[in-house]
Amino acid sequence: MTRGARDYTLTLTEAAEALAERQLTALELAEAQLTRVRTTDAAVCAWETLDPDHVRREAARWDATRVPGPLGGIGIGVKDIIDTNDLPTTIGSPIFADRRPAHDAACIARVRSAGAFVFGKTVTTPFAFMDPGKTRNPWDPAHTPGGSSSGSAAAVAVGHVTAAIGTQTNGSVIRPAAFCGVVGFKPTRGAIPTAGVQPFSEMFDTIGTLTRTVEDAARLASALADPGRIAGTLAPVAHPPRFAYLGDFPWTVQECDADDVVEAAVTQLRTRADVVPLDIPPAWHGAKSIMRSIMLFEAARNLSDLQSRERARLSSAVNAGLDEGRAISAAAYAAACGERERAIAFFTQWLEGFDAVLAPSAPGPAPRGLATTGDPSCCTLWSLLGFPAISLPVGLVQRMPVGLQLAAPAGRDDSLLAVAAWCGARLPFRGLV
Amino acid sequence: MTRGARDYTLTLTEAAEALAERQLTALELAEAQLTRVRTTDAAVCAWETLDPDHVRREAARWDATRVPGPLGGIGIGVKDIIDTNDLPTTIGSPIFADRRPAHDAACIARVRSAGAFVFGKTVTTPFAFMDPGKTRNPWDPAHTPGGSSSGSAAAVAVGHVTAAIGTQTNGSVIRPAAFCGVVGFKPTRGAIPTAGVQPFSEMFDTIGTLTRTVEDAARLASALADPGRIAGTLAPVAHPPRFAYLGDFPWTVQECDADDVVEAAVTQLRTRADVVPLDIPPAWHGAKSIMRSIMLFEAARNLSDLQSRERARLSSAVNAGLDEGRAISAAAYAAACGERERAIAFFTQWLEGFDAVLAPSAPGPAPRGLATTGDPSCCTLWSLLGFPAISLPVGLVQRMPVGLQLAAPAGRDDSLLAVAAWCGARLPFRGLV
Repeated sequence: MTRGARDYTLTLTEAAEALAERQLTALELAEAQLTRVRTTDAAVCAWETLDPDHVRREAARWDATRVPGPLGGIGIGVKDIIDTNDLPTTIGSPIFADRRPAHDAACIARVRSAGAFVFGKTVTTPFAFMDPGKTRNPWDPAHTPGGSSSGSAAAVAVGHVTAAIGTQTNGSVIRPAAFCGVVGFKPTRGAIPTAGVQPFSEMFDTIGTLTRTVEDAARLASALADPGRIAGTLAPVAHPPRFAYLGDFPWTVQECDADDVVEAAVTQLRTRADVVPLDIPPAWHGAKSIMRSIMLFEAARNLSDLQSRERARLSSAVNAGLDEGRAISAAAYAAACGERERAIAFFTQWLEGFDAVLAPSAPGPAPRGLATTGDPSCCTLWSLLGFPAISLPVGLVQRMPVGLQLAAPAGRDDSLLAVAAWCGARLPFRGLV
Repeated sequence: MTRGARDYTLTLTEAAEALAERQLTALELAEAQLTRVRTTDAAVCAWETLDPDHVRREAARWDATRVPGPLGGIGIGVKDIIDTNDLPTTIGSPIFADRRPAHDAACIARVRSAGAFVFGKTVTTPFAFMDPGKTRNPWDPAHTPGGSSSGSAAAVAVGHVTAAIGTQTNGSVIRPAAFCGVVGFKPTRGAIPTAGVQPFSEMFDTIGTLTRTVEDAARLASALADPGRIAGTLAPVAHPPRFAYLGDFPWTVQECDADDVVEAAVTQLRTRADVVPLDIPPAWHGAKSIMRSIMLFEAARNLSDLQSRERARLSSAVNAGLDEGRAISAAAYAAACGERERAIAFFTQWLEGFDAVLAPSAPGPAPRGLATTGDPSCCTLWSLLGFPAISLPVGLVQRMPVGLQLAAPAGRDDSLLAVAAWCGARLPFRGLV
């Protein structure tokens, strides 16, 4: 293991173990990370709020107290829609530029009690919706990092922090993870408490993790979740896994180059695992519109007052989304909620007998340009269902990363993480750090 | 219908109709109500924030614009844990004395679009937990008004407003309604969105109404809820209703005098309806502890950071509740959630074939003294299950009101309101106004 200036390359697990064993101080780690921020963030712009003195104070305080725990001494990046008691929380919007929450979100209190501190607040798209923030893709600043957890994914990819917290309503953890070449994990809906997180659509809003390894995803997600919901270490995979494979989603056109990378990964896995191709049955080809109806109806309801008084300071995309949501009738919303229940029952059954379903994380690598954050629709089905999903970086297309997504029925987070790690070990990927 | 100084005695429905028909202006109604506040609130202390100029401005604005809707021109009391963009929201705690939310809670945006305005913020117990606020029972200031929606119930009882919004996690709408001699309605969990309401236990936190009639409860709840979830007018009751009757809950000892009032009401209803006595089966005698485990685990999680930094400014009851919650293991919480699911299935089936179940709203009338807000445990079962419940005032014991509670399986709000109105018509009660 390296020491010194390159400590920023440590994974979360490596760093936590080195800290616990006194091979490293939190301040040393933080200084290496702050140096990395200083040398790279002008191009990446991952941070909404980052105060080096705050980082040093928090790290030194841990060194003085050595609060034990699986995240002892680790500074975590926190998406800026999650309340923190020591740093502003701006929701990515000028409307909330001065917002300083008095108290931590429930999940932040959880990671602090696991020994972590808040390194800084990472850039989010406004209200965690579709409009880009200032962050750029660390693989190439001419490309989007994806969103809405843009800064969290970029900061982890480039080595500013070992791990960051994001949120996903539709595709906001998995997509930026894929675009930035890191591991994005969205646990089962409800595993991590959402109190203190700006609501968009409560049916879907889910807290997730951005890390550089699957092992790290388990460690962070376990600390964020209610105790016992997610194991902090990976279970062994005793048997050759059995995977379903969805080559595409009926509502999304895959790009050929990226498709080749995903296919190659699946071919590689097939040498050691059963892989059964499946297609989403025609009856569920409308799943994307079920998701959209519920999501925008709830967002319009939750942000109604905000929009009526702040329309001019909301982006046209947010206004259009909320307007669309307001036009959805309550009957259509109720019908969509009913369809969702049926979809959960169907897809739970459909994936019976598989350890996970493999699918692309996105239609392609991060698109060139910063005008959009890319297409979330490869994430939509698992978001609709509240199923856990994880994205692994598995290759490059024109020097931009491509992700492979694994998902499983609700509650099967531990086995999903285990088989994802199994896949990761067989699909080596060289990240930026 | 009276006009002038006694306009404060109008029900919500009467007032809304008079306003719509231009028999009354919103400012006239507001002035009558403000006069009523001036002459009675020194004894009752229902309001955390009440600015007469704000009320007059809002009423005059409605008179100028005449925004149509079922609540057009009506000033509503709002429990002070629900965010409002024009008045402070203090959560009943000195910790949040200066809190001024930028935006309305989702349910407040809903009632504003139905034509209502926020009359003022009503006293809540701190964090909607058990510690009394400053409010006194309008029937006798030596008695508690109940809690946690103390000010909402008292303000409606004494005629400060026609209607108020409360919240119930365990017994915080039904109990103060019973103690103050008004109608309290807690709809099915999920019917009214909770975004913008201080969370305590998300499994149970439910928005409800305090009004003087069942008809008014339907009108207000309909406007608060997602469209189509609750009808704004009462359905007719075509057949003689069929009621189950729970004379008591196994975890609560009823007081004899109050029991007599409830029994007399049930006897009266029995002349026109089928009433089938039931007892909660022994297998479910532990329901109260299932509720407590879930509620305090979630509260401890959600208020963890608050408590760790503000213990000295939290009451001993809140600290004790949160400490108890923190000591509940995640496995015990998960087990309790599983028990809750089984209880929902059981009690849904158990009430099959009944229009509603009748039960006491509280073990007795409001206890003398202001040191507690009384026992919520008659409300616990319906809170645990997320079933709709309503309390009707049905008589007096030593000049203090006693309530009859009706409940029904989830989703049956409209028929519950209809049979509650049917009962109310047969159980006349003379309130304070």
